[in-house]
Amino acid sequence: MNVPRPAFDPAVLPAGGAAADDSHQHVRFGDGLALECGAVLDELVVAYRTYGRLDADRANAILVCHALTGDQYVAEPHPLTGKPGWWSNLVGPGLPIDTDRFFVICANVLGGCMGSTGPRSTRPDGTIWGTDFPPVTIRDMVDAQARLIDHLGIDRLFAVIGGSMGGMQVLQWAARYPERVFAALPIATAAQHSAQNIAFNEVSRQAIAADPDFHAGHYRDRGTIPARGLGVARMMAHITYLSEEALTRKFGRRLQSAPASPAAGGGAGLFGEMFEVESYLRHQGSSFVRRFDANSYLTVTRAMDYFDLARDHDGDLASAFAGTFTRFCVVSFSSDWLFPTAQSRAIARALNRAAANVSFVEIDTDKGHDAFLLDEPDMHRTVAGFLDGAAIHAGLRPAPPGVAAPGPRGKAP
Amino acid sequence: MNVPRPAFDPAVLPAGGAAADDSHQHVRFGDGLALECGAVLDELVVAYRTYGRLDADRANAILVCHALTGDQYVAEPHPLTGKPGWWSNLVGPGLPIDTDRFFVICANVLGGCMGSTGPRSTRPDGTIWGTDFPPVTIRDMVDAQARLIDHLGIDRLFAVIGGSMGGMQVLQWAARYPERVFAALPIATAAQHSAQNIAFNEVSRQAIAADPDFHAGHYRDRGTIPARGLGVARMMAHITYLSEEALTRKFGRRLQSAPASPAAGGGAGLFGEMFEVESYLRHQGSSFVRRFDANSYLTVTRAMDYFDLARDHDGDLASAFAGTFTRFCVVSFSSDWLFPTAQSRAIARALNRAAANVSFVEIDTDKGHDAFLLDEPDMHRTVAGFLDGAAIHAGLRPAPPGVAAPGPRGKAP
Repeated sequence: MNVPRPAFDPAVLPAGGAAADDSHQHVRFGDGLALECGAVLDELVVAYRTYGRLDADRANAILVCHALTGDQYVAEPHPLTGKPGWWSNLVGPGLPIDTDRFFVICANVLGGCMGSTGPRSTRPDGTIWGTDFPPVTIRDMVDAQARLIDHLGIDRLFAVIGGSMGGMQVLQWAARYPERVFAALPIATAAQHSAQNIAFNEVSRQAIAADPDFHAGHYRDRGTIPARGLGVARMMAHITYLSEEALTRKFGRRLQSAPASPAAGGGAGLFGEMFEVESYLRHQGSSFVRRFDANSYLTVTRAMDYFDLARDHDGDLASAFAGTFTRFCVVSFSSDWLFPTAQSRAIARALNRAAANVSFVEIDTDKGHDAFLLDEPDMHRTVAGFLDGAAIHAGLRPAPPGVAAPGPRGKAP
Repeated sequence: MNVPRPAFDPAVLPAGGAAADDSHQHVRFGDGLALECGAVLDELVVAYRTYGRLDADRANAILVCHALTGDQYVAEPHPLTGKPGWWSNLVGPGLPIDTDRFFVICANVLGGCMGSTGPRSTRPDGTIWGTDFPPVTIRDMVDAQARLIDHLGIDRLFAVIGGSMGGMQVLQWAARYPERVFAALPIATAAQHSAQNIAFNEVSRQAIAADPDFHAGHYRDRGTIPARGLGVARMMAHITYLSEEALTRKFGRRLQSAPASPAAGGGAGLFGEMFEVESYLRHQGSSFVRRFDANSYLTVTRAMDYFDLARDHDGDLASAFAGTFTRFCVVSFSSDWLFPTAQSRAIARALNRAAANVSFVEIDTDKGHDAFLLDEPDMHRTVAGFLDGAAIHAGLRPAPPGVAAPGPRGKAP
């Protein structure tokens, strides 16, 4: 029988996971932050990166909000993996989010593991928060970002943009600080997490909790990390980021160093790693555990699960945006089954009911939820066009020649 | 922070998992079985159950094939859990598979853990196979069933029926022993496992392998079982058996013993088990590990992944059924995303190309893949009607009055 080898060997991993340190550019707020759960953080650290130059009138700032496993390194190599920034195909000089024109800000979310206050931060008493870190919500993440925006002396953001959990933050920004958001681009997201998504997150949390190296969250004290549990969680989540079509196109049933027929080679085809999609997923899991912290994964997935913007407004999503002057561009992807188009359409409908200025675009692609991170020309044209139009309304200086792009090709919600 | 407790406590579980013993009704074949991988089992045990009475002419036998985690206890309480048979709503006196009329047979699959030869069986040298058990395929499972059918003195089965992996066996039966299958009902299945399904299975295997109680498959020797890994695998798989609609309808975002808003109750809503869907999944996982063996889960999921009936026939599925006289009824469910209707339609198209007698029915339901196990009146009417019509063609004695049902309401493939 094929005995699967655990793909995630804790021995080869840095004890305690990716370093929690002050090496990340950050700002420290000594007056702390009051959380939605009622707890108060005595001190708040927000790690962030910026790209481009802030205009004299401070009107050209774009806040990028990252997703569950993202970070502030949007348009530059990741300090731990050396890989290009997670949105380096969208953010940069001459790109749809043009850093020759806009001042782009991205902060590691509250509860994250790349320098912002989170489970790996130090408490006032000098110990590590670990599992004692209070639960945070999307609203708390946005409040922490608002402190950063204050610190940067920016009253109003020209735009807030993000995909997946980043899109939840965009919606929360527009609902909580409408006067501070001129334009909002929630991409591949939802106004509330679905039962199916909560279910997948719960399996991820169970996979982490089932790893004996988790030590009820105190793995740092034991000099280990729950690499196997976190790796399994990532493998499963990664399937939900793709589509059946994309998986079939990328891998199909292709074998890797194994005969095509199990009958051939005395069953060699029945042993070990055989389908390409299997080794691909194992790689996804093992590379992930090198850069992400398990307690942050638990904290941030919980924040996604709690997110329900309608619940916070008497069950009516429209009232979350009542009287808003923000210009919205809602984007979804046809093959995204984690955040299906229907959920984006529900956002657009609520914005219509709130008499908001909204365009809705469903991008036709077979790449699934992952599409928001990939080179999707239609999405890039949509973002560039929407920002270009909004910039005119905002009275920003026009785009440098050659950057102009066609406007969003919207469908009626 | 909410620290998830592992839902699966090995301490409360039987060491080595559900008992592997001879208590199950079985037949032993001393001449063994040659497997597709090239290995040969010196001895073959097939555990099975029968319902109803075999006619004098032995023409009224129906073979039921079970799915990944099913077993031979189709229409009677499960000996370990005491729960009703897994298809007791479909198989029984006066039910669509009428045991007053048909002789129903179901065997535990080769590689399973309910009495048939599998990883928990004893080798000739007296030791347990464990992870040394050779890899098996759907074809091997069908060959083992054929030995049972021979033993029962049945030349031709009136019908072979099964859902999911059971449907794979139905297709393999029709392709390998066409003269022995008068009617075939493959339900919610596919002629080859998709890349997405292989991916989900691989995550399940990794979750099991990641459990230190797995001991590379030798957990029985250590008197333990990989309960946490197997539980996580089951939780994830269970999500794929349902649909987003079904999860939303059954659970939505309902909370369990927690305030609706995380802001209320000093964040009590942010601690512990909060969404109903979470505790439901934990229950699914913990009850599963009490009855199923991890090595069997690895063996049988591999068999599903290898299944590719077209590959075994020069890439042309139609040639797998060339010249068949078997009557087919292919059934799918509209909300099944694990075995989508498109895969059943591909089977029906291949059967059409093979000039076979085939009807295809897509049942409209929001219950997902699970629907094949549930009370789906349309499916039950379809099965009853198809069997009734086939029985006339087979020259079986007519159904007792009151059992007749409307025929299948087919759609053109």
